[in-house]
Amino acid sequence: MAYELWYWPGIPGRGEFVRLSLEAGGIAYVDQAFENPDALMDDIGQRVPEPFAPPYLVAGDLVVAQVANILLFLGDEHGLAPKDRAGRHLAHQIQLTIADMVAEAHDTHHPVEMMAYYEDQKPEARRRAADFRDGRMPKFLGWFERTLDRAGGKWLTGDRWCYADLSLFQLVDGLTYAFPKRMTTVMRDCPRLAALHERVSRLPELRDYLSSDRRQPYGEGIFRHYPELDAA
Amino acid sequence: MAYELWYWPGIPGRGEFVRLSLEAGGIAYVDQAFENPDALMDDIGQRVPEPFAPPYLVAGDLVVAQVANILLFLGDEHGLAPKDRAGRHLAHQIQLTIADMVAEAHDTHHPVEMMAYYEDQKPEARRRAADFRDGRMPKFLGWFERTLDRAGGKWLTGDRWCYADLSLFQLVDGLTYAFPKRMTTVMRDCPRLAALHERVSRLPELRDYLSSDRRQPYGEGIFRHYPELDAA
Repeated sequence: MAYELWYWPGIPGRGEFVRLSLEAGGIAYVDQAFENPDALMDDIGQRVPEPFAPPYLVAGDLVVAQVANILLFLGDEHGLAPKDRAGRHLAHQIQLTIADMVAEAHDTHHPVEMMAYYEDQKPEARRRAADFRDGRMPKFLGWFERTLDRAGGKWLTGDRWCYADLSLFQLVDGLTYAFPKRMTTVMRDCPRLAALHERVSRLPELRDYLSSDRRQPYGEGIFRHYPELDAA
Repeated sequence: MAYELWYWPGIPGRGEFVRLSLEAGGIAYVDQAFENPDALMDDIGQRVPEPFAPPYLVAGDLVVAQVANILLFLGDEHGLAPKDRAGRHLAHQIQLTIADMVAEAHDTHHPVEMMAYYEDQKPEARRRAADFRDGRMPKFLGWFERTLDRAGGKWLTGDRWCYADLSLFQLVDGLTYAFPKRMTTVMRDCPRLAALHERVSRLPELRDYLSSDRRQPYGEGIFRHYPELDAA
């Protein structure tokens, strides 16, 4: 029985981290953002346990929410992460750090009011984005670079990709869309990270997906490009 | 061999979520925030894998970072969470949702510059705190209340406490310190959550710890009480 992935229609957002693992793992799933784009809010309220927010994965009787939790589940069930204890927890640690940076990337355009428009918090967004660009981006991306280096430079946790490698690709990809100037500067010091992004983009397992219409463009959602929030 | 817990000295912060599980689980550990309070920055840089940030747990050769990841590890190793797949992932999902709310609670006093003083971002903090109080607190706490209700009203995932119950106690405790007026209002609609807080505070497994000097007062750190950021 195929899994169901439920997420907001029309944006890659956090759902994309789950999609990449499902696609690269060759795992059968129904993407309800495409199949039932109007049914999300009705669906979420009746699930047990009720997810706090999308995305969530339905696997028969099981409902798994929170991106890192879904990937932990998929990693265990489908061999998308190392099986040994150290490798499993390293993959998960990296995934949780990616999740932290994703939340901070979101807050650059919504620093003070989550449900209001970006246009209603532009001065605050400028300040938060400067802090993110100058402090957080080198700190996070430098850590991913060192972690890759210590793992041998190719994949984060071993001889093949794990779900965290795919998520790190997506993080770099989204940041490059949102902050092209700043990423050009910061990525000069992160050659292994740049190579990882390139390597995942060419994975045979992802070729069909990444060139399909199902790979949605950025725009609204977490990663947004506002030129006034970017700087080298 | 006892675990080592590494965290910033002098604040409960995120380390407290780990401490509560270690203490309630009767697990031997060395709390390096007390034993080696000046050694953290030297220690973190030499660990493999290097944690992105404290807290981290050292278990022999294993280094586990990120609060939810540490608790996942302790849950599996010491029976602090259900053993079945559904229960394990439910406990972890709740823990990750607690982590999300903790990050948002932090951002109420640091909405635009992470390394600057609160005093340098007071207008922004007022706006973010109002958003947190009015929108996020009822949304998050209401979800925890419903989750408790669906689980039977006593513990989140079964007949006994799991690590997420302890973390939820800590979240309610910290929020009550930081936002006493708002919590008085919001908790009126969350009787099960209030009872859980009370129940954990009286756990025999935690009695010694909670009445000891090792249970540190709030102050700096994540949960801060600025009267101007609170309102009923």
